[in-house]
Amino acid sequence: MQRKAYKIPGQPRTVVAVGPVRIGHDSFPVIAGPCAIESEEQIMAVAYAAAESGVSVLRGGAWKSTSSPYDFRGLGDEGLDMLAAAGKAVDLPTVAQVLEAAHVDLAVERVDMLEIASGNMQDFELLRLAGRSGKPVLLRRGPSATIDEWLWSAEYLLAEGNEQVVLVERGIRTFGTVGSDTLDIGAVPTLKETTHLPVMVDPSHSAGGPMRVRPLALAAQGVGADGLIVEVHPSPEIARSSQAQLGIGGLEELMTALGISRVRRHIDQIDRQIVRLLARRQALSLEIGRVKQARGLPVHIPDRESELLDLIKEEATHLGVDNAHVEALFELVLAESRRLQHEMRAASDRAAVS
Amino acid sequence: MQRKAYKIPGQPRTVVAVGPVRIGHDSFPVIAGPCAIESEEQIMAVAYAAAESGVSVLRGGAWKSTSSPYDFRGLGDEGLDMLAAAGKAVDLPTVAQVLEAAHVDLAVERVDMLEIASGNMQDFELLRLAGRSGKPVLLRRGPSATIDEWLWSAEYLLAEGNEQVVLVERGIRTFGTVGSDTLDIGAVPTLKETTHLPVMVDPSHSAGGPMRVRPLALAAQGVGADGLIVEVHPSPEIARSSQAQLGIGGLEELMTALGISRVRRHIDQIDRQIVRLLARRQALSLEIGRVKQARGLPVHIPDRESELLDLIKEEATHLGVDNAHVEALFELVLAESRRLQHEMRAASDRAAVS
Amino acid sequence: MQRKAYKIPGQPRTVVAVGPVRIGHDSFPVIAGPCAIESEEQIMAVAYAAAESGVSVLRGGAWKSTSSPYDFRGLGDEGLDMLAAAGKAVDLPTVAQVLEAAHVDLAVERVDMLEIASGNMQDFELLRLAGRSGKPVLLRRGPSATIDEWLWSAEYLLAEGNEQVVLVERGIRTFGTVGSDTLDIGAVPTLKETTHLPVMVDPSHSAGGPMRVRPLALAAQGVGADGLIVEVHPSPEIARSSQAQLGIGGLEELMTALGISRVRRHIDQIDRQIVRLLARRQALSLEIGRVKQARGLPVHIPDRESELLDLIKEEATHLGVDNAHVEALFELVLAESRRLQHEMRAASDRAAVS
Amino acid sequence: MQRKAYKIPGQPRTVVAVGPVRIGHDSFPVIAGPCAIESEEQIMAVAYAAAESGVSVLRGGAWKSTSSPYDFRGLGDEGLDMLAAAGKAVDLPTVAQVLEAAHVDLAVERVDMLEIASGNMQDFELLRLAGRSGKPVLLRRGPSATIDEWLWSAEYLLAEGNEQVVLVERGIRTFGTVGSDTLDIGAVPTLKETTHLPVMVDPSHSAGGPMRVRPLALAAQGVGADGLIVEVHPSPEIARSSQAQLGIGGLEELMTALGISRVRRHIDQIDRQIVRLLARRQALSLEIGRVKQARGLPVHIPDRESELLDLIKEEATHLGVDNAHVEALFELVLAESRRLQHEMRAASDRAAVS
Repeated sequence: MQRKAYKIPGQPRTVVAVGPVRIGHDSFPVIAGPCAIESEEQIMAVAYAAAESGVSVLRGGAWKSTSSPYDFRGLGDEGLDMLAAAGKAVDLPTVAQVLEAAHVDLAVERVDMLEIASGNMQDFELLRLAGRSGKPVLLRRGPSATIDEWLWSAEYLLAEGNEQVVLVERGIRTFGTVGSDTLDIGAVPTLKETTHLPVMVDPSHSAGGPMRVRPLALAAQGVGADGLIVEVHPSPEIARSSQAQLGIGGLEELMTALGISRVRRHIDQIDRQIVRLLARRQALSLEIGRVKQARGLPVHIPDRESELLDLIKEEATHLGVDNAHVEALFELVLAESRRLQHEMRAASDRAAVS
Repeated sequence: MQRKAYKIPGQPRTVVAVGPVRIGHDSFPVIAGPCAIESEEQIMAVAYAAAESGVSVLRGGAWKSTSSPYDFRGLGDEGLDMLAAAGKAVDLPTVAQVLEAAHVDLAVERVDMLEIASGNMQDFELLRLAGRSGKPVLLRRGPSATIDEWLWSAEYLLAEGNEQVVLVERGIRTFGTVGSDTLDIGAVPTLKETTHLPVMVDPSHSAGGPMRVRPLALAAQGVGADGLIVEVHPSPEIARSSQAQLGIGGLEELMTALGISRVRRHIDQIDRQIVRLLARRQALSLEIGRVKQARGLPVHIPDRESELLDLIKEEATHLGVDNAHVEALFELVLAESRRLQHEMRAASDRAAVS
Repeated sequence: MQRKAYKIPGQPRTVVAVGPVRIGHDSFPVIAGPCAIESEEQIMAVAYAAAESGVSVLRGGAWKSTSSPYDFRGLGDEGLDMLAAAGKAVDLPTVAQVLEAAHVDLAVERVDMLEIASGNMQDFELLRLAGRSGKPVLLRRGPSATIDEWLWSAEYLLAEGNEQVVLVERGIRTFGTVGSDTLDIGAVPTLKETTHLPVMVDPSHSAGGPMRVRPLALAAQGVGADGLIVEVHPSPEIARSSQAQLGIGGLEELMTALGISRVRRHIDQIDRQIVRLLARRQALSLEIGRVKQARGLPVHIPDRESELLDLIKEEATHLGVDNAHVEALFELVLAESRRLQHEMRAASDRAAVS
Repeated sequence: MQRKAYKIPGQPRTVVAVGPVRIGHDSFPVIAGPCAIESEEQIMAVAYAAAESGVSVLRGGAWKSTSSPYDFRGLGDEGLDMLAAAGKAVDLPTVAQVLEAAHVDLAVERVDMLEIASGNMQDFELLRLAGRSGKPVLLRRGPSATIDEWLWSAEYLLAEGNEQVVLVERGIRTFGTVGSDTLDIGAVPTLKETTHLPVMVDPSHSAGGPMRVRPLALAAQGVGADGLIVEVHPSPEIARSSQAQLGIGGLEELMTALGISRVRRHIDQIDRQIVRLLARRQALSLEIGRVKQARGLPVHIPDRESELLDLIKEEATHLGVDNAHVEALFELVLAESRRLQHEMRAASDRAAVS
């Protein structure tokens, strides 16, 4: 039986959409946020720093899975509300872990992406629910999971019809003593050969301390991972959960080292918006084309075009953009519109003849 | 903070009661049954073989956790009903795995002991529910869990007030390629030093095939484990889940190799019953003692005693037991009764004086 | 190509002879001695305790392989002389590790068996030299060696024509933290299926302390290993190398727990001597047979036999052994001698005819 | 006791010189060559490709350590002669593995750097000999060595007075199944914190195939390793040892991906040469200064300087280098010379006064 997680030669790789972010397509998106959401102030501070430094998705823990029953267990859905508000405030999509069945509905209403923790990689009931949630899913590798077992867990999500799955390499249990686990960096190229799903790297646990997050993040970028997950806290030294999180300054340095900047992210987003507007414009232009054809009007109506260009140049002048540059651009756009309308007429003529 | 799972010098080790079985006290109890319950016929066949060969607890899987979403997932609570019926038929207590919150109530009504699978060792919500269930719990080690992490998971059960916890060593993930995991036999003596909880061994996965179950079981007995868990299927080659289960013949050979026999188990049970009857007899004898004291009668009433002995000897003759042997035994019992009654009188005299 | 280390169905398992000890045949022989030989007094104290408690082979380290270049490195060939003298004093064969090519000749002259350390499992030049040495070899598993890599190293010994190889399981590197390594107890039954070579277990490193040597030794006995290696030091707390060695008292307790006693070992040795004398007697009797045939004398010469029996009974009386018992035994021996002589005559008659 | 391999705050990191290459200083030097030297043609083909594509050191195996005793074991010192000749032909320094004591002298005479194989990381006698050899040493990590054990092995080299040691991370044994081992990428930043020795990465074994060498090499560059080791063979598919080597084309693609080019390497070398010539010029200029002072001549002798500049400009014209550019450069050089001579005179005046 063909497994749905397997790469099929000739088929495109899966791109996972989280708000405007496209994991598997954008250049090295970073997901960042506190291990545990502790207060409104805390998550807001992280959110602003994240947005400012070019992070793509805001992440925060509402429920914490701790070895000891006596530890802080997270703020629960109240924490989730804080995360959602923070994401909204800085216009970043959000992701949070769900640890049990009851969390799924609570999270679906509040965040843009669900995350399955390492410890739940084989919690098959939770996987089914996440699969059916309609949300994209981050699936972390279990610390002793082989790559094949990991892909089988992804299969549980895909089997529910959810293809929006991102694999997260976060280290495996070995005798090595660097961090609590050893980052299996070789898993990234191996997965690229095996599956069509994107793969991100989270160095938090294997780094074993904030000073080693940056080199491992650069290794992840070098090896060809589709992005990065990092833990950030405004005051890591007093964090209520993991104390190996980056501070705000550490995040900024990391993003600079990765060559990611807020400006670049903004340009990417604007370009994406331009492309989307062009697509919409094209669709509208074809509608007009159909009307013109129905009324027996020609494709090219020079007066309309020169009027339109005048309007554009006026706007450009107003915004301080070079007139000639804008005019040249829009002449290309108009030419494309005419080409498409002609093509449409030719197609309908052929249809009429036959 | 003192962890409840830790051994306290001078305190007795925990004994876990499952029906008449005392894990941590009985000599190497064996828990056996099919990996997955497949039908009434299957579980009945295993149950009879188990009882016959000296197994202490009947085990069966009603819900199966499989890597692939396309595999057989167990018969669910219907399977649990079959397990309960089979246990009743052969007079063995029963145990079954619970994989998610919803299973706990279903299992509590039907079986005598709950089991937490390796993959759920850190499913903390499930641990809490199992802790509150009032049932004894088998807690399997996760394949990449350190001993400390494992004991923290036990702590979740103990923190709910449930001390009836048995740890199950079943192998850890290593580079070794014998089975799917490497049996960490050294974990047994290590746990004996650290915790008061009993430790059993399940060699199924680390054996990597039925032919290596026996040597590993003998190793477990040698190393001082408190008992064994084995998977048994009437026709292992057509089993719907794991195909590394022992057949009926394999179980019998194993039990013989372990020096466990049905006869010996029966003797153990009878002895335990005799002890319980002696305890009840003693309590009744003290009640009679109080009546005699109240009525001013002496402790020793020879006629009553000789009448009682006659009755016993008659019964012995009828059952083919040597008369002199029985008489000697009961003279000891009667002497002890008198001693206790005298002691009681002395105590009440002292109380009256003071 | 058929590997020489592989088991061939129907072929007997290899028995390795070290002095009078037969590894792979004797019931659970124990090899014991100090991690490092430190002085004549030390090795002598261990040797006497070893012999007294039923140990089969005396072991001691003359060269030590230590992680740090600043540690005690052993007494070298002077230490080897002490080991040889101690073995001779208590009549036990000896074994010592060789760490480099130059050690092989020095060891061959002084001890009965060579040992290859874990760290040298793939020191192929050393393996070749050990293979050619004519001495039996203990081959320890490397801490990260798969079973297949281990058997390839054994193949280096066998390829030199040396079949006297004993494999020693001593633990593998894992994330587990019991000792410095995790005893892979399952390797023993796996090797029994794959190779004809005997397998011993050394729990010293995986035990991580003397208190866990006994349970692991019993596990090794349970799993079906061909014997045990333990480290013993008269004062473990001041040992110059490993401080996880058993003391003299610990060795005695261990041997008792294993059911091995000096008396039992002596009986085994005497029985073996009787069998060897019977074999020699038989050879001599056949020689006499040939003389009798050449001279035309009959096989059965009653006078000679009764004279012989008289002599034996006299000796038995002298030593306090029952006369009838001895007479019965020797009548069996004489009958066997006659049978063999008749068989020989028949064979030579057939040869003369054809 | 302070270990010599440990980093001392404030002290510079060790730079290891191999011919003109400075490991720990140059930007990501690459060491490349065949796993095993098979023939003159083979090593020459690799050498030319290596030099052409910007490789810094030529590497080749003369002795091979193979699991099986029946495999190709290398050409021995004859192979080493081929390696030396190839290195000379393309003007690259060379490195080769030594597997046993006897190899050290043979290698010292022929190559510029010795390499200790993974399997020999704890061959302490070999380490001592390599330490005393006077050659720089590549020390590969053993597959089950902790970072501390690895640094202890480096200590053996340092203890012999040899500080020219480069650590090579090449993967550790884990349950992961990507290659034969898992690259412990996190070891690199950990070592940077602990030791002053440079660290290179060899992805050959952990890659488990040539297609994953490039991503892992980029990860090594990202994580901050001091360089890379790769295996290259003109026809990897018919290689007599490892068949996971890169082909010539693969090497070129890799070097381009790493941003390393022959041109850039040449520029680096030329710059280094310029700096060395400047240093020599400066020393000579100070000598002249001393002569001028002794003869009572001034520091600045304009005629000599203009004569010198004329000579330089003539040469520049001849070679097609811009005259003004050269003149500007040398005026800086001359100014620095004068500054140094003045400084020298001032110092000797102060000495005369006091």
